[in-house]
Amino acid sequence: MRGLTVDALNPSILKVQYAVRGELAIKAEAYRERLKQPDHGLPFDKVISSNIGNPQQKGLDQPPITFNRQVAALMEWPALAELAKDVFPKDVIARAKELHAETGSVGAYSHSQGVPFIRKDVAKFIEERDGYPADPNHIFLTAGASAGVSLLISMLINSPKAGILIPIPQYPLYTATLASYSGVPIPYHLDEFSEWATAPPDIDKALQSAVAEGTVPKALVVINPGNPTGAVLDELTMEHIVRLCEQYNLVLLADEVYQINLHRPTTHPFISFKKIVRQLKSPVPLVSFHSISKGVTGECGRAAGDFECTNIGEDVLALIYKMMSVGLCPPLSGQIGVDCMVRPPKPGEESHPLWEKETEGTHEALRARTKLMAERLNKLPGASCVDSPGALYLYPRLHLPKKALEAAHAAGKEVDAFYAMQLLDETGICVVPGSGFGQKEGESHYRLTCLCPGVDEYVSALENFHLRFMKRYGGL
Amino acid sequence: MRGLTVDALNPSILKVQYAVRGELAIKAEAYRERLKQPDHGLPFDKVISSNIGNPQQKGLDQPPITFNRQVAALMEWPALAELAKDVFPKDVIARAKELHAETGSVGAYSHSQGVPFIRKDVAKFIEERDGYPADPNHIFLTAGASAGVSLLISMLINSPKAGILIPIPQYPLYTATLASYSGVPIPYHLDEFSEWATAPPDIDKALQSAVAEGTVPKALVVINPGNPTGAVLDELTMEHIVRLCEQYNLVLLADEVYQINLHRPTTHPFISFKKIVRQLKSPVPLVSFHSISKGVTGECGRAAGDFECTNIGEDVLALIYKMMSVGLCPPLSGQIGVDCMVRPPKPGEESHPLWEKETEGTHEALRARTKLMAERLNKLPGASCVDSPGALYLYPRLHLPKKALEAAHAAGKEVDAFYAMQLLDETGICVVPGSGFGQKEGESHYRLTCLCPGVDEYVSALENFHLRFMKRYGGL
Repeated sequence: MRGLTVDALNPSILKVQYAVRGELAIKAEAYRERLKQPDHGLPFDKVISSNIGNPQQKGLDQPPITFNRQVAALMEWPALAELAKDVFPKDVIARAKELHAETGSVGAYSHSQGVPFIRKDVAKFIEERDGYPADPNHIFLTAGASAGVSLLISMLINSPKAGILIPIPQYPLYTATLASYSGVPIPYHLDEFSEWATAPPDIDKALQSAVAEGTVPKALVVINPGNPTGAVLDELTMEHIVRLCEQYNLVLLADEVYQINLHRPTTHPFISFKKIVRQLKSPVPLVSFHSISKGVTGECGRAAGDFECTNIGEDVLALIYKMMSVGLCPPLSGQIGVDCMVRPPKPGEESHPLWEKETEGTHEALRARTKLMAERLNKLPGASCVDSPGALYLYPRLHLPKKALEAAHAAGKEVDAFYAMQLLDETGICVVPGSGFGQKEGESHYRLTCLCPGVDEYVSALENFHLRFMKRYGGL
Repeated sequence: MRGLTVDALNPSILKVQYAVRGELAIKAEAYRERLKQPDHGLPFDKVISSNIGNPQQKGLDQPPITFNRQVAALMEWPALAELAKDVFPKDVIARAKELHAETGSVGAYSHSQGVPFIRKDVAKFIEERDGYPADPNHIFLTAGASAGVSLLISMLINSPKAGILIPIPQYPLYTATLASYSGVPIPYHLDEFSEWATAPPDIDKALQSAVAEGTVPKALVVINPGNPTGAVLDELTMEHIVRLCEQYNLVLLADEVYQINLHRPTTHPFISFKKIVRQLKSPVPLVSFHSISKGVTGECGRAAGDFECTNIGEDVLALIYKMMSVGLCPPLSGQIGVDCMVRPPKPGEESHPLWEKETEGTHEALRARTKLMAERLNKLPGASCVDSPGALYLYPRLHLPKKALEAAHAAGKEVDAFYAMQLLDETGICVVPGSGFGQKEGESHYRLTCLCPGVDEYVSALENFHLRFMKRYGGL
């Protein structure tokens, strides 16, 4: 027999690209293993995975919210509420009992759309955030925002000409998922000179050229706050985006997983697309994604989130339910995590002071690190960096010398990937080159997270490497 | 704008069918809500969800393994190991510390293929089971067997002519997933008169007619022990199946999630396809799926499992890794669950006696219930039932009167769906009609789980309904 060869596989799968966990991340893992040997011979003593927004990763310092973990522990072994009752705050025990009465065992399947009780809590959270009603029947709990996005894209791509508008730079989940379902990405560029602003006229232009080329636009993806840019959309821009969706009959896919990661909330507040759509009384079909992986919760490992459907008919909702039901249900421990995120301890409850201290600590650490890192990166020759008002990342631009471009070309690499590989080899810091997120022809960037403690040591290593690299290729 | 209409969606999605959570299950959920009202007016006081193998569901009685839940609780809140150290057995604390040192926080992403340490434990489990080596690099932890199957099918379907052999009756995940990727199901029938045996000559015939019709067979699905049949394959049949895969260059997809659900292990032991492939020194590419949802673990809500690739090249493995990485990683609490499943407490360890008692209790309860239910169903007029040697189900056949067929036809339903709907309406028992699993033209079956406690009351309700139904339509 011939066996299973790559050329016998689905050709769409071959086209999928996902740089966040690509060549660099794989090499970083290999370095991490090698460092366990005493004679590893590497010029660094730890690997810093700045390639992925993974707040609770070893070596990073965003702690889990204690309340969430105490509830989770009681859900895992309910007997603890008696056996160790003095160890748990009273509101934790009450919450776990309330959830247990509704969900039963965390080892049982739930309703495929998510536990009804938890969906009601999500609806209340959305109502309080936006000031407009939310219907638990229009909310789906998920195995994370990625799972929800993937499901929606699989449903929307109805022909190889069907396209979806994607911001550039983007989180590559979008192009990867589109590639796997043989859909057409329709890129629209964000404006680095206006702090990565989204310009609706640029979206309109992208739509017009896509249509002229025979693509049928089905949906528009907006990531707000942005990934990798951290930009936060203003109300007027959001209104224009909704109007564009009306004009072109597009479904609006709003990736709002960083909605509480705001470093300057007074000048750059988060506004949900749900609120804008309701304010405008717009008929635009909207799917809004949220997650417990980011924010102050940071529970990536639980793989959980939710999406809310607005202006989407019962027949389409029934199809979404059907597709969720083939996958049975989102993991229960993640659903419990969603409940804790949307319904944290209230003032006056025993867990509230610690919850408040922990969330404020996380916000403050991210805010301070982002500011300091942006300032120092901006001072480097051949680098510039928009100071992100949101999310977990910076996306500095590199202005690299011609010799570096030539050396990268000779090595068969994009120059930013070439830069990032040397950064990893020399410092143990793993970042993702801009080519993984998309950028204008001839530009170079990289994305790094602002999650690393010991920021001074970390940024110094970045700076020293950058200066060495610039010298090495004649840029200084 | 026109909004989002069903006819604008991916037509493959519309063709997906998944009866296990279909019309009947949705109605059962609605009844469950209605029963909360004092004046519900229903002729039963509880809903019994026999439609799905969900051992830890409320009202069913398969308890979680205490060891697994104690480890999970400590992973959620590691401080408990100090704060409540007298409450936990010593081996539990040691296991949680060992896992924590390897995985870090359960709230962090892991390696996309699963925590390397846990994959090593899975490899050891497979080696001890089969007597052949297993490579942790060829093992992928998953968000459950369904997620793994779906990934493999998405990779194998490379054109609308690509087909996959599916046993009939089957677990409808297979046809649902094939439909969503526009692949061709190639049915092969199991033989009810030989206790649902798999006949390799029938598979060969199915292959020949598929090829004659222009279908390109890519893979063969075997579910062993069977779902819904509970049949357990013998070694000779398995060898024939492997030879067929060699002959037709097929990937063998072995769904082995019920591998320890054996009611008569002496006469009907489980043998893995990995063992057969190695014994035969066969080059057949094999993907073997396992899960923590079934067996004695029964942790459906954790959504976790693993698959092992045998005879699959590094280039294809790299593609599988890439696709897993787009989904980031399997949920950590599920990965922890896999570790506990493949590495239970050993004799001499503090948790072993309780673990043994719990697992034996679960095996014995299932074995006794399956036997009793099959006996009583076999005594009913117009019903016959193969006494399953494995898995969690029975799949009785109904021989229904002509008037029932006419009434079902008039109602626009298959007669087994018609029967199952009346069963639900009159008794609160939810089963899945055979039309959801596939059966020969003109036959009627249903699948029910053997997980329900109070088996006498439950089977009596089934019997009484069946006799009423038969009388109602002139069958008695």
